Amino acid sequence: MFHDLCMMDSLSDYSSARYVLFGVPFDGTSSFRAGSRWAPDAMRKASANFETYNSYFDIDFEDLLIHDAGNFEPYSDVEKTLEELFFAVEPIVKDGKIPIMMGGEHSLTYPCVRACAKHVSEDIGFVVMDAHFDLREEYGGVKFNHACVSRHILNDITDKYVTIGVRSGPREEWEFAKDNGVCYYTPDIVREKGVKTVLAEALEHLDCDKIYLSLDMDALDPSFAPGLGTPEPFGLTDVEVRDIIRILAPMSIGFDVVEISPEYDGGQTALLGTKLLREFIAAHAAANR
Amino acid sequence: MFHDLCMMDSLSDYSSARYVLFGVPFDGTSSFRAGSRWAPDAMRKASANFETYNSYFDIDFEDLLIHDAGNFEPYSDVEKTLEELFFAVEPIVKDGKIPIMMGGEHSLTYPCVRACAKHVSEDIGFVVMDAHFDLREEYGGVKFNHACVSRHILNDITDKYVTIGVRSGPREEWEFAKDNGVCYYTPDIVREKGVKTVLAEALEHLDCDKIYLSLDMDALDPSFAPGLGTPEPFGLTDVEVRDIIRILAPMSIGFDVVEISPEYDGGQTALLGTKLLREFIAAHAAANR
Amino acid sequence: MFHDLCMMDSLSDYSSARYVLFGVPFDGTSSFRAGSRWAPDAMRKASANFETYNSYFDIDFEDLLIHDAGNFEPYSDVEKTLEELFFAVEPIVKDGKIPIMMGGEHSLTYPCVRACAKHVSEDIGFVVMDAHFDLREEYGGVKFNHACVSRHILNDITDKYVTIGVRSGPREEWEFAKDNGVCYYTPDIVREKGVKTVLAEALEHLDCDKIYLSLDMDALDPSFAPGLGTPEPFGLTDVEVRDIIRILAPMSIGFDVVEISPEYDGGQTALLGTKLLREFIAAHAAANR
Amino acid sequence: MFHDLCMMDSLSDYSSARYVLFGVPFDGTSSFRAGSRWAPDAMRKASANFETYNSYFDIDFEDLLIHDAGNFEPYSDVEKTLEELFFAVEPIVKDGKIPIMMGGEHSLTYPCVRACAKHVSEDIGFVVMDAHFDLREEYGGVKFNHACVSRHILNDITDKYVTIGVRSGPREEWEFAKDNGVCYYTPDIVREKGVKTVLAEALEHLDCDKIYLSLDMDALDPSFAPGLGTPEPFGLTDVEVRDIIRILAPMSIGFDVVEISPEYDGGQTALLGTKLLREFIAAHAAANR
Amino acid sequence: MFHDLCMMDSLSDYSSARYVLFGVPFDGTSSFRAGSRWAPDAMRKASANFETYNSYFDIDFEDLLIHDAGNFEPYSDVEKTLEELFFAVEPIVKDGKIPIMMGGEHSLTYPCVRACAKHVSEDIGFVVMDAHFDLREEYGGVKFNHACVSRHILNDITDKYVTIGVRSGPREEWEFAKDNGVCYYTPDIVREKGVKTVLAEALEHLDCDKIYLSLDMDALDPSFAPGLGTPEPFGLTDVEVRDIIRILAPMSIGFDVVEISPEYDGGQTALLGTKLLREFIAAHAAANR
Amino acid sequence: MFHDLCMMDSLSDYSSARYVLFGVPFDGTSSFRAGSRWAPDAMRKASANFETYNSYFDIDFEDLLIHDAGNFEPYSDVEKTLEELFFAVEPIVKDGKIPIMMGGEHSLTYPCVRACAKHVSEDIGFVVMDAHFDLREEYGGVKFNHACVSRHILNDITDKYVTIGVRSGPREEWEFAKDNGVCYYTPDIVREKGVKTVLAEALEHLDCDKIYLSLDMDALDPSFAPGLGTPEPFGLTDVEVRDIIRILAPMSIGFDVVEISPEYDGGQTALLGTKLLREFIAAHAAANR
Repeated sequence: MFHDLCMMDSLSDYSSARYVLFGVPFDGTSSFRAGSRWAPDAMRKASANFETYNSYFDIDFEDLLIHDAGNFEPYSDVEKTLEELFFAVEPIVKDGKIPIMMGGEHSLTYPCVRACAKHVSEDIGFVVMDAHFDLREEYGGVKFNHACVSRHILNDITDKYVTIGVRSGPREEWEFAKDNGVCYYTPDIVREKGVKTVLAEALEHLDCDKIYLSLDMDALDPSFAPGLGTPEPFGLTDVEVRDIIRILAPMSIGFDVVEISPEYDGGQTALLGTKLLREFIAAHAAANR
Repeated sequence: MFHDLCMMDSLSDYSSARYVLFGVPFDGTSSFRAGSRWAPDAMRKASANFETYNSYFDIDFEDLLIHDAGNFEPYSDVEKTLEELFFAVEPIVKDGKIPIMMGGEHSLTYPCVRACAKHVSEDIGFVVMDAHFDLREEYGGVKFNHACVSRHILNDITDKYVTIGVRSGPREEWEFAKDNGVCYYTPDIVREKGVKTVLAEALEHLDCDKIYLSLDMDALDPSFAPGLGTPEPFGLTDVEVRDIIRILAPMSIGFDVVEISPEYDGGQTALLGTKLLREFIAAHAAANR
Repeated sequence: MFHDLCMMDSLSDYSSARYVLFGVPFDGTSSFRAGSRWAPDAMRKASANFETYNSYFDIDFEDLLIHDAGNFEPYSDVEKTLEELFFAVEPIVKDGKIPIMMGGEHSLTYPCVRACAKHVSEDIGFVVMDAHFDLREEYGGVKFNHACVSRHILNDITDKYVTIGVRSGPREEWEFAKDNGVCYYTPDIVREKGVKTVLAEALEHLDCDKIYLSLDMDALDPSFAPGLGTPEPFGLTDVEVRDIIRILAPMSIGFDVVEISPEYDGGQTALLGTKLLREFIAAHAAANR
Repeated sequence: MFHDLCMMDSLSDYSSARYVLFGVPFDGTSSFRAGSRWAPDAMRKASANFETYNSYFDIDFEDLLIHDAGNFEPYSDVEKTLEELFFAVEPIVKDGKIPIMMGGEHSLTYPCVRACAKHVSEDIGFVVMDAHFDLREEYGGVKFNHACVSRHILNDITDKYVTIGVRSGPREEWEFAKDNGVCYYTPDIVREKGVKTVLAEALEHLDCDKIYLSLDMDALDPSFAPGLGTPEPFGLTDVEVRDIIRILAPMSIGFDVVEISPEYDGGQTALLGTKLLREFIAAHAAANR
Repeated sequence: MFHDLCMMDSLSDYSSARYVLFGVPFDGTSSFRAGSRWAPDAMRKASANFETYNSYFDIDFEDLLIHDAGNFEPYSDVEKTLEELFFAVEPIVKDGKIPIMMGGEHSLTYPCVRACAKHVSEDIGFVVMDAHFDLREEYGGVKFNHACVSRHILNDITDKYVTIGVRSGPREEWEFAKDNGVCYYTPDIVREKGVKTVLAEALEHLDCDKIYLSLDMDALDPSFAPGLGTPEPFGLTDVEVRDIIRILAPMSIGFDVVEISPEYDGGQTALLGTKLLREFIAAHAAANR
Repeated sequence: MFHDLCMMDSLSDYSSARYVLFGVPFDGTSSFRAGSRWAPDAMRKASANFETYNSYFDIDFEDLLIHDAGNFEPYSDVEKTLEELFFAVEPIVKDGKIPIMMGGEHSLTYPCVRACAKHVSEDIGFVVMDAHFDLREEYGGVKFNHACVSRHILNDITDKYVTIGVRSGPREEWEFAKDNGVCYYTPDIVREKGVKTVLAEALEHLDCDKIYLSLDMDALDPSFAPGLGTPEPFGLTDVEVRDIIRILAPMSIGFDVVEISPEYDGGQTALLGTKLLREFIAAHAAANR
């Protein structure tokens, strides 16, 4: 008669699950506004707002095998957190399941991608929706700051890398991006070319079968997502991000939604992030029926 | 020197009024977030923000005969509330006035439509802007839950029914809608075809002279209306809803704005709902000058 | 590596637990402000703020057998909710455990007391801290409204009844209380006589071994607990309520904390309610070591 | 079936009323935080939280003749506002009724006192609960700033003046108070001597039969009243203010509650202000039965 | 090691600065919601969120000469405030620098334009983005109300006037605008014609070399800017306003961002206003490299 | 005409100043709620609410030599931050001035005490008001966590240590405190003995001339200070803390107010913290006239 507290429709136990959700309430390197530590539970709360059925894909979540593992307990120290998170994600990937992280800050993506690359495919692509390049070597004296995640993935894990929605960074990052042939699409370009053309180009550039997909919610315009750590005007629309997820989810072997700071709005951003997470699952499940 | 507390420009007494506004501060069956009980007064407060003049229709509210009757006092019990509300709305309709309700939750629409159907036109159409079908037979053990309003109107009052902005529902509702030839338009369809084409189709489907128009604010995208009971991403824009109202108001014999939860934002949703309510009056008055 | 989402230090499984916590996210009859539906999860979130050790009683929560069963899923209908909740609480009581409810509204106390009376002791006393008498026969057309809980317990379950902190009610309730010898203490009386004297009197009046203890948070002054459904000035202090709990917990066979509306403050009331809940457990455990 | 929007239990029409409530939504000279313009309607909203019965005085509001006249419409200009407000309050006083103002800022008290002095008693006393002396000649280039109200009342209307709760002011004000024999009580003195002793002294000092009583809510400690224009720590308790009102209300011929800024808390201050306003009415009615 | 509190990247002292920022925390004539008094510091706080580099113009703010002069201390009285503000802005203009004001309410624009007209170019154009005409002669008994700023500029300073985003005003203002050939563009027209066409027309109409550019944030749709004094639905998008600024900044000799009320959202409006202010500087600097 | 942004009445330049204020916007190790990074500027904003005159000490702040140095720019890494902060505070102390820090989190106190001990008096006492012992060796894998500050000061700098208001800690901390003769006073003891007795005992225990005084705002009861990182019920009153500061300020050579999280209330905690900071300065200045 009592029910566990988890993402709605996470009815499966771990062993039979195909999708394994988990939260990481960590925002220790946040540079502007903290608070993404509260996002995983805010997303679980938001999930009660949504129907179990996705009409676009004709998918009912009650038919899917989803497990909510609860929250990873982070450390004060970011490096220790990332190291231990890797060991927590590794078994999920090894067991052939799709790990889906609710952050927490963007630095947490690193160990998730690393686990996927190590155990599923070294030839993995990394596609990230983000307002920022996150290509710094270090920030504020900390290597694994949230502002550096893409650089370390690029350096350490894979150079098959596309970033969509990017519109902010110091001159060094823009120059690094250009000098190193980083494939990026600003919201202005997405608006101009359309999501389908952009993704066709991006997939050609990636030239791989499997990707890890990361959604930093600040890729979205703050009118859709005001509750963020570092909101940046002139972003993607909710429909654009939804359409990107619909196309890329089928080839994804891992996914995350990060950087929601629920205390800066009345639920709007957590609701949208949760909806997009559910769109990812529906799109993946529909393609892999 | 003192003025009554009411919607701005509601300068008429009841007997000479053409438009009769009233609030119903009831949200007893809210399934996710409560709070629409506070919407009527929040809308009155918001109304002080707006000019009395509508330039699109060249209508000055000071020239119109609008009466704000105050708030209906609801009961804890939803069925009792709906029954008594019917008796409160009935005289307004019988007196040949346009009833305009500020909800409260969507279940309250039922007695308003019923009163209009009984006393004005049995051949009435029902057009609702809503993110949800509201086509359940019952929800949470309660027949007159806010999630069932359209089903009961369809069953009991009229089958001339169109819903615009719909994008969420369990599989049963989508199947019911398809099996029963329900005329619905998702926001994606509205975007693709445009408001004018959609409404031309809808009016042909309705095939009637008079309609009751209901605006569940969650028809709108949460970027425009974050303060809601059950916000659903990927919705209609404010301009789309405004344009729908401009076209449909002239043939409407009743109107409502429901499901605003003012405590989840800083006034944005109540302001927009009030503006749209005033657009309805201006459009109706201009066509019936 | 991942941990379940629950009240901190609820490390026990059900079968070995002595204390069984559960939430009931229901506020369907709230007359002024809704929102206690969010209280159980807000209290779990708040619990992470507190140390596991209670120095007053020299009790470490890590040594106790506490189980968090999660949330009971309520119905829209209050009577159905109370009926089913009774069946959910009954096994906890039968299994010899202490049920501890995180409400939700005060009407939910009724089935908890009923379960305790039926299975532990018919001679049970009912001690409630509350700003209101809750002695109405019905309210807003609903018998099991939150404003009637004490009356129904008095009528149906036990007349061994004491209420502390009461300061608000219609004339009928004050007269009913006086005419029926209801034992009540206003905050002014508590301030004047002191907690110890008041409780000595109350226990003599009760004349029983076991009680059910209920804490409606509006017993407290709004300076300590602003986030409530029906806040009432001139209430008890946090220290007075703590001291009442310290004295009464040892003889209690059930407990609840109800009527917190977390959306009306920045966490203050949920934090205090959680702290008092933990004080109850520590006091009970210390006396029953 | 519909009810007007007003302070709960304001059931009387103007002509038969003994107590006439009105709001003045004006905060144009606020020096720190604005927002008292929203207080009158926030207090009306808060009033729905309270029972109609006051057990201390055995008074039921439903038996009293209270009229809520609505809100006075202020001007942008403070002098014009005060002048016109005087003309609005004058007839209430002339008609032998008790005017009760819900501010708005403290400058609004001036015309209320002036109307009472002119039409009821030139020998009127002025008792104000306030954290600040408000004894400046002018502030920010404006004579009728909220920080000057007591000075102008003292200069223009009556020198029978007592201020309770005062604890803040520039050196000039403290010196003016001492040099001119102003009778003031800091919260520390109230705590030390007790309310009864302080009021006995104050009444001896005043030496008059009738007073105007003004409650600037910042007299209270911010723990009781955080939603204010200029909150000042170390203030009076809610019980102290209540007890002052209980004693002084019977001899009062006018009353106001001012300086609540409802947007800085979750309703706590408006609820307390409303409760104290109702305590004033109950105390006055009980003494004048 | 300590840094002053100012807009990020305001590294220059006054004497060498090209751009001089200052705040004016004044909202004394606000008619609906106050709070723009807090905007200047909210914008400085928001500025820490943004990178120093603008990739569109290839401008690094660290290379620019920007000075943040702090806040002008206003008076309670609006006329006194405007008069003294003129004397504060005058030296900035005389020294050949670009004054950039962070309001504060819109009335503050008047002395800024006046200073620019007097010392730089009498033939100055005035381009304002605004939801309202602000063409009243007076409002609420006050000539220099925020609702009158454009009228006074038109009357006193220059008739080279264009307003973009306008959609609200009493009939008199619309008629005044039409009768006097005021050049205005509603958001519907901007959507239809596009920013470039609109500005081409506007510049032809203005027929001058230099303009003062004023951004009343309510020109934007409330989905982008909910934290305002008088939010008006159906407004401009963030990208439209950005593109207007990019085109007009090069010929601007003064700029302001006004009417942000930071207490009505979680930072969204101040962040966008700050971003647009920085876009102005980047666009101006790029054109005048 | 423009004024710098700083704590009110900080009119002195550095060289002539006696009191040097600075903020440290760092909360990187916050374990429950972050946000004290925003406290220094929130306190500066709050300071505009207060009069320049302190009547208890007959001190006018305009006569004092106070300098606000602005904010120290922290690093993401806590150890680096503490190290550099030490170098920033050192010259202030060396120059014979009183450093007054507005935190930020409590870990920041360590370098301030260290600087005072090194350059003023090795025999320094450390008196801290705090709800928590902060006596852990490390927390969450980080030595310089905010939960460990007292331990490191005790270990590294001085064993003349008194903590007041303490009421929370793991069993190890309470045992450590008892085993090591730590002098601590819970709020219950303060209430029972009174501030004067407690401080007389404490000073005898300390047996030194000079102390560093640290105010973790969570020493206060959450009714006075709800906006905190780790609020703990049953705390000290505002008057108790004020009276402690009045007595201890004269012998203090450094002071800080830490752990305010301004986003969890409407300004209440920052206002009180600022008031207490000003009380410290007044008390110190009065004793050292």
